[in-house]
Amino acid sequence: MTTAASPSRAAGRAQSREKIGQPVQTQGQMRGRTRIETSVVDGLGLARKLRAEMAAQVAALTGSAAAAEGAAAVAERPAASAFHSGARPPCLVTLRVGEDPASRAYVAGKHRACRRAGFTSRNLELPANTSQKELLAQIEALNQDGEVDGILVQLPLPKGLDAVAAACAIAAEKDVDGVGPVNAGRLLVGGAGLFPCTPLGILAILDHYGVELRGAHAVVIGRSNIVGKPVSLLLQRRDATVTMCHSRSRNLPEICQSADLLVACTGVPRLVKAGWIQPGAAVMDVGATYVNGKSGNLEGPVGDVDFEAALGRAGLITPHRRGVGPMTITMLLRNTLDAWCQRMGAA
Amino acid sequence: MTTAASPSRAAGRAQSREKIGQPVQTQGQMRGRTRIETSVVDGLGLARKLRAEMAAQVAALTGSAAAAEGAAAVAERPAASAFHSGARPPCLVTLRVGEDPASRAYVAGKHRACRRAGFTSRNLELPANTSQKELLAQIEALNQDGEVDGILVQLPLPKGLDAVAAACAIAAEKDVDGVGPVNAGRLLVGGAGLFPCTPLGILAILDHYGVELRGAHAVVIGRSNIVGKPVSLLLQRRDATVTMCHSRSRNLPEICQSADLLVACTGVPRLVKAGWIQPGAAVMDVGATYVNGKSGNLEGPVGDVDFEAALGRAGLITPHRRGVGPMTITMLLRNTLDAWCQRMGAA
Repeated sequence: MTTAASPSRAAGRAQSREKIGQPVQTQGQMRGRTRIETSVVDGLGLARKLRAEMAAQVAALTGSAAAAEGAAAVAERPAASAFHSGARPPCLVTLRVGEDPASRAYVAGKHRACRRAGFTSRNLELPANTSQKELLAQIEALNQDGEVDGILVQLPLPKGLDAVAAACAIAAEKDVDGVGPVNAGRLLVGGAGLFPCTPLGILAILDHYGVELRGAHAVVIGRSNIVGKPVSLLLQRRDATVTMCHSRSRNLPEICQSADLLVACTGVPRLVKAGWIQPGAAVMDVGATYVNGKSGNLEGPVGDVDFEAALGRAGLITPHRRGVGPMTITMLLRNTLDAWCQRMGAA
Repeated sequence: MTTAASPSRAAGRAQSREKIGQPVQTQGQMRGRTRIETSVVDGLGLARKLRAEMAAQVAALTGSAAAAEGAAAVAERPAASAFHSGARPPCLVTLRVGEDPASRAYVAGKHRACRRAGFTSRNLELPANTSQKELLAQIEALNQDGEVDGILVQLPLPKGLDAVAAACAIAAEKDVDGVGPVNAGRLLVGGAGLFPCTPLGILAILDHYGVELRGAHAVVIGRSNIVGKPVSLLLQRRDATVTMCHSRSRNLPEICQSADLLVACTGVPRLVKAGWIQPGAAVMDVGATYVNGKSGNLEGPVGDVDFEAALGRAGLITPHRRGVGPMTITMLLRNTLDAWCQRMGAA
């Protein structure tokens, strides 16, 4: 583990290949040390760039437009040769059960992103009293439907419905949310698969900003199936040394201080203090919690990291808004595109 | 992370519940510090104890003998009520392809262990020129065979045969080696499943010797699918903070020094020096490598840890022989027993 005095090797080299990240001007003195210039991740900008690339690919592959940029990218896709002009575009189907205003909004955002990238998408709305059997039958029908590339069951499900069983029922090759056991197994064992979207988004950010992962010490706080565990394995695949922490970890500040890369995904607002961050480290903050503000109103979203205090200390950091969030939906599109390529290539 | 001066909290409490481990008398002075009394794990003794318990369970459940001890244990098994006296015993089938003397010996050891525990077992020997299609067909036939509870494909396979495809072909509920993607996924996501045998054996040793895992810092060196990755996840399930290291990890000695529990599974002989071990830490050594000795002959097996030097430093340590090894086959029996219980309970 590197000492706290020297900037992290990982993020010390952090540079945006295309300067999408806007470095915050924070030069000055801090405890007798020169303040680090902190780059703030522009997740929305990166997401837009990647989505535009995908849109161009889809346009080129379906023949709906001639996009030279897309055509160039297409050549790199494994199944490209099997495509024929006029192929149908990628199709994502979301499945939503019951009345939950927040999840309705999330689903709408996913369909909007699909539409803008030239994907088709459908949303199935099932009533709150849907039985488990009925839910599984709907999933099975989508598994059998040759026009569907990706299936996403929006959480939370109403009480009495088993989300794990639903995840297990989705055909592995259509499991674009990466929640089923076969893709989890592939993630663990190695090789290709459809992996959870937020971890993929974090890796895409780190790659874009040129953060060196090989040999770096990555500390992941939080061990959820959707973020903490998969991001640990993706980082390990990239030759990082990974420490998996959680709410019961002892000496959390000291462990974090040894991190070249810190991924916080606990949902505990401002858990990570500035003093926990190794100068120059890359900090990926997945937290987005709404808290009761002084005025009694809900304020937020607040991250797991004390963002303001971390400026001048971290080398690279994601903001609460327009950080990791936009990259999650982007990776859902990427997974759907990959599933479509596999499907069309195999057809 | 705890300081190197104080004995590890995890293994400081290490006590054999039944004193199977034989503490080595190593009192004395070491660099001005009192030498730690190192307990050496008696893996063979623990394996024998667990196998005897399983034999009693099988005897009680199949009615082949009246074993009061077994009957008591049986009451705790989930599917016990569905059993009827005279049920067939658990059955393991091994599949071996080609001529490899070492793997022939390994397979023989597994069948011997089955026989002694009252299991039945079969070994299918296929010629070295077996095609992938033929291998998969054999596995599928075993999947369909209601008399078979566990299937194990012995590695290595001859060149040209795909071990991953073979692992994927085994029905998840018969995958007693825990090598397939569904069980890997279950291990990652949580819940029950059939998990790799060496990691299960390590956990059984730690539990037997009363090593506290909750909140402990566990360092795992090596990231194989069969040991390193699964043991990391099993330890995380038990609320340990887990650092996953590998050959490219920087500062390996310092990372190890912060470990309350060290699991070494790299196959690099004597990689871990005494100075890497936190005084009082629990050290699980999976390495068993044969090296060229001074006389030119093969010597070994040699562990990943410098065992002799670690005595007086570690709180608990596995020896190269009769340490983790015997527990691996024991957990293969346990998985087969569990698969049988599930199967008979479901029948």
